[in-house]
Amino acid sequence: MKFVVIGGDAAGMSAASRAKRIRPDLAVTVLEKTADVSYSACGMPYNIADPGRAIEDLVVRQADVFRKKQGIELLTGHCVEAIDRENRIISGVSDKDQAFRFAYDHLLIATGASPMLPEIPGADLPGVMVLKNLQDGRNIKAWMNHHPVKRAVIIGMGYIALEMVEALCARNIRVDMIKPRPLFLPWMETDLAAEVMAEIKQHGAALYPGHDIKRIERRNDRLQIICPDITLDADMVIVAIGVRPNSRLAGEAKLALSVADSISVDDTLRTSDERIFAAGDCADAIHVINGQKTWIPLALRANRSGWAVADNVCAQPTRLAGIAGTAVFKVFDLQVARTGFTVKEAENAGFNPVAVTIQSRSRAHAHPGSVPLWVHMVADQKSARLLGTQMVGREGVAHRINAPAVALHANMTVDQFQQTDLAYAPPFGPTWDPLLTAANQLLKKL
Amino acid sequence: MKFVVIGGDAAGMSAASRAKRIRPDLAVTVLEKTADVSYSACGMPYNIADPGRAIEDLVVRQADVFRKKQGIELLTGHCVEAIDRENRIISGVSDKDQAFRFAYDHLLIATGASPMLPEIPGADLPGVMVLKNLQDGRNIKAWMNHHPVKRAVIIGMGYIALEMVEALCARNIRVDMIKPRPLFLPWMETDLAAEVMAEIKQHGAALYPGHDIKRIERRNDRLQIICPDITLDADMVIVAIGVRPNSRLAGEAKLALSVADSISVDDTLRTSDERIFAAGDCADAIHVINGQKTWIPLALRANRSGWAVADNVCAQPTRLAGIAGTAVFKVFDLQVARTGFTVKEAENAGFNPVAVTIQSRSRAHAHPGSVPLWVHMVADQKSARLLGTQMVGREGVAHRINAPAVALHANMTVDQFQQTDLAYAPPFGPTWDPLLTAANQLLKKL
Repeated sequence: MKFVVIGGDAAGMSAASRAKRIRPDLAVTVLEKTADVSYSACGMPYNIADPGRAIEDLVVRQADVFRKKQGIELLTGHCVEAIDRENRIISGVSDKDQAFRFAYDHLLIATGASPMLPEIPGADLPGVMVLKNLQDGRNIKAWMNHHPVKRAVIIGMGYIALEMVEALCARNIRVDMIKPRPLFLPWMETDLAAEVMAEIKQHGAALYPGHDIKRIERRNDRLQIICPDITLDADMVIVAIGVRPNSRLAGEAKLALSVADSISVDDTLRTSDERIFAAGDCADAIHVINGQKTWIPLALRANRSGWAVADNVCAQPTRLAGIAGTAVFKVFDLQVARTGFTVKEAENAGFNPVAVTIQSRSRAHAHPGSVPLWVHMVADQKSARLLGTQMVGREGVAHRINAPAVALHANMTVDQFQQTDLAYAPPFGPTWDPLLTAANQLLKKL
Repeated sequence: MKFVVIGGDAAGMSAASRAKRIRPDLAVTVLEKTADVSYSACGMPYNIADPGRAIEDLVVRQADVFRKKQGIELLTGHCVEAIDRENRIISGVSDKDQAFRFAYDHLLIATGASPMLPEIPGADLPGVMVLKNLQDGRNIKAWMNHHPVKRAVIIGMGYIALEMVEALCARNIRVDMIKPRPLFLPWMETDLAAEVMAEIKQHGAALYPGHDIKRIERRNDRLQIICPDITLDADMVIVAIGVRPNSRLAGEAKLALSVADSISVDDTLRTSDERIFAAGDCADAIHVINGQKTWIPLALRANRSGWAVADNVCAQPTRLAGIAGTAVFKVFDLQVARTGFTVKEAENAGFNPVAVTIQSRSRAHAHPGSVPLWVHMVADQKSARLLGTQMVGREGVAHRINAPAVALHANMTVDQFQQTDLAYAPPFGPTWDPLLTAANQLLKKL
């Protein structure tokens, strides 16, 4: 039996490895268009922050290990261009200009997502770069090695942008962040977003939300980001305005697409063709709160769905639960986390949301080193169900978000969550955990 | 209507304050036998660690605030000696030798717990001290101020003992820890317990489990802890071998007692007399896993049940869910946490437990500063239900334990927990959270 995988990062290599472990007799072929497989994409900002580390440190497992130890036919530089569903054959051209064709019994599309680019003149100038795959990271580090970068502009203010501002500041680069939309982090509750903005400014970076970028120009060995009202100078520009799923191949093969043009899959990760699976950043998922389709590309889901595909290919039927959209990121010394719906998302999903924002502390009363910690919690007025939580603080945020995440999976009401027995010791929080304080306050509104 | 509260710490003052807030017309009387009310008992080891801080820093709210701002009749130095249930009157004697009597419509017994003392000669010598109430903390600090304490012995190795060893080492005191039972932390999985032991030894303290203590003697201005095989010298001895519920008053009033002689309450915190509530360390609770009675005295439960009593007294009917026994403590740089049952507790409760212990990392692959983190996870073979989790590590343990705690409240199976969408970013953990890795491994055994 032949299992062919398109794409050799998180979802693809997880699926290939696990399938080969379960069924050593399975013929597993992975086709990856770049030269890199199995790396920690999320680690790139932290790697870029450190000029002493090679980008290759982020490779989790070398290609040769997959080939020689695991017996996977792993072909890099192989870009798949078409799926012939009728004859179960994929075809494409390698970077050595060799046409290739592979027959499959089961196919996995794990083509990931690609960074969006602004449609402005100059977006293709040297020194204007994105950060998604390992080659992007390599390009950024190479640029910084070969050019004296004193100023950088980051276009966008999402997760990647916020991790990159910290990385560049760590290298003593003056950073300006700019984006067309007026709200800094539109999904984040206002008070919490203000804390994140303050943190960025305190570290010397400037924020310019609400500025349309007309073009990028090269002038006197520098780049200029030109808006109607301001012009920003830079030795390097990072574009981080979001990603879109790489679903062109699937679309051309007439597989069903879904939210944001992601590939539609069921809870076994099968597309509309039962021989073809999709997993990772290119595929959709259902949301645990309402069972509706959603597209939230994150690393854990990619790994988890890669495993589930392997199980299903190997006749160990597996179904995946929905996702809660749990995410955490670090911005300088701040931890920022969320799970579930925002008020707006809850409204769009047909709920009648009610929310509170509370300020608590990271440690107990009178315990030294205690710092403020903010919790924003959302519930449904009618059912009293917990719908979402956001948190910001200098400590105690990252793993604390997992408690409401589990509560979302369990469809808990705010009252049920408010009754949970959470851990307490003075170095780690107040007796009433900040999450419980938020739930207590939210109960008063229900 | 008269609401009388016996005991003015966490449960008692929470109940009194909240009742008065809900119903300002309620006559609320609190009788506290010591001079102190409303303090953070859990903060005492950290306060003792710092000679520059007064023990009074731990007072959350001054007695006069309760009296003048909240209108609570708060009487310190008032030891209640009897409850006349028929006539609804409590009586006792104050520290000024005045007899007192109070009639009640509703009574709350919030008498807490008392440290156990070893029944050996010399346990009452000056310099042999316990740590439970604020006066105990005051006594220890006073002893250290007036005696040059170079060596201390801690009898016991529970939470308090482990927090105290850190506190005393912070004051450059050489500490020996001793206890009769041979196992260091009997409830903790062996590999995890070994990490905690190593941490203590690395900080210069010595551990002597499995030594019967025959007597304590004073010799040449020093204390000697005498065992059949060894003798330990000390300038101060802390006894921390556990606590027992202060239920004598309840027992003498013929109220039903329960596990470990704690006061039996239902989910409204009512004792076997519907006019009398009990809350805090003196009262029992039901365990979320099996609905059986248990006694796990912890601060959050005390506060929570104090509130619930107030609600019920004020005709806002409230029922409390069970407890999961979630706890966390810090031992030097280690965070140690647990929730739910151990393998042994699961067996005793009639389950057929199966468990795994895994070692993971606190941060992502290739992320600087990553340190080991251990997870021990217990499930029931038959139902596949998650039954408990223990964790040890230098970071990322304290709040991570809350995810399995919430899962216990939701009666999740290991498979359901393994599917939860937990947060990931390289500074805070691997893509597969250590808890999910443990669940993955545990699934293989089910």
